[in-house]
Amino acid sequence: MSIAAQILELARTKGVMIACAESCTGGLVAAALTELPGSSMMFDRGFVTYTNAAKTALLGVKPGTLHMHGAVSEEVAKEMATGALAGSDAGLAVSITGIAGPGGSDNKPEGRVCFGLASGIQVWSVTQEFGALGRSRVRTAARDYAQTLLLEGLHTLP
Amino acid sequence: MSIAAQILELARTKGVMIACAESCTGGLVAAALTELPGSSMMFDRGFVTYTNAAKTALLGVKPGTLHMHGAVSEEVAKEMATGALAGSDAGLAVSITGIAGPGGSDNKPEGRVCFGLASGIQVWSVTQEFGALGRSRVRTAARDYAQTLLLEGLHTLP
Repeated sequence: MSIAAQILELARTKGVMIACAESCTGGLVAAALTELPGSSMMFDRGFVTYTNAAKTALLGVKPGTLHMHGAVSEEVAKEMATGALAGSDAGLAVSITGIAGPGGSDNKPEGRVCFGLASGIQVWSVTQEFGALGRSRVRTAARDYAQTLLLEGLHTLP
Repeated sequence: MSIAAQILELARTKGVMIACAESCTGGLVAAALTELPGSSMMFDRGFVTYTNAAKTALLGVKPGTLHMHGAVSEEVAKEMATGALAGSDAGLAVSITGIAGPGGSDNKPEGRVCFGLASGIQVWSVTQEFGALGRSRVRTAARDYAQTLLLEGLHTLP
């Protein structure tokens, strides 16, 4: 069973709707979650916030957080996930912000992706270094990891 | 040159940012538009409004329009595109709402997809009948058609 199918089944069993807030994946997570028939039972909405202005306007990410930590940071990932949860009817929200490439910097290399996960109970973040796989593979790796996080998050919910 | 590359080039030349509002495509249009390096120069934000509540909250689609015409209608597509334009920094917005399937009804068959296109100059809509191709192929056909509309829309802009 695909991970999207596992998420769909568990979310339906628990009666939890899901939202996502994506930057570098650009809609791939929402697209994966809505690929299966019946996904409208568990997918509420997705925000593709590519610009900093969009992150602030749609998700309430603070300009000060963007300025201090940069868009690719766990701090911003947490605010994105919290904002997606607050701005939806979902019980669980995942966020993704990273350097899909090509290129990056010494400080923020290609393949670095920060993820956030927010439920009514907790807000959590993690950084993965996927490496310089190229833009397309970084994006799909981040898409798949976000789904793993959602599945783990669903297991923690009552 | 892929259609996404053509959109990117023309949008950059014209200095126009793009937004999208997706229902049945579930993020595929945003994902296609952000696949290329440099897409942050022209892609502003995307709304994946899967539920009716999301269409109303994020895009300002009127509950009366949803009730009277149904979510899959040109009237809703136009309000989605207009709402995406108003709720973004974009100069051109496309919307997609359809029956990806499997299944549909006599009244609204699988493969019917309504599109909206909004700029500061005009709001426009069209319906395509892709037929009962299966969920995945209806979604990708709708994704590709939305990109065609964006390219046509960009050509009409000054």
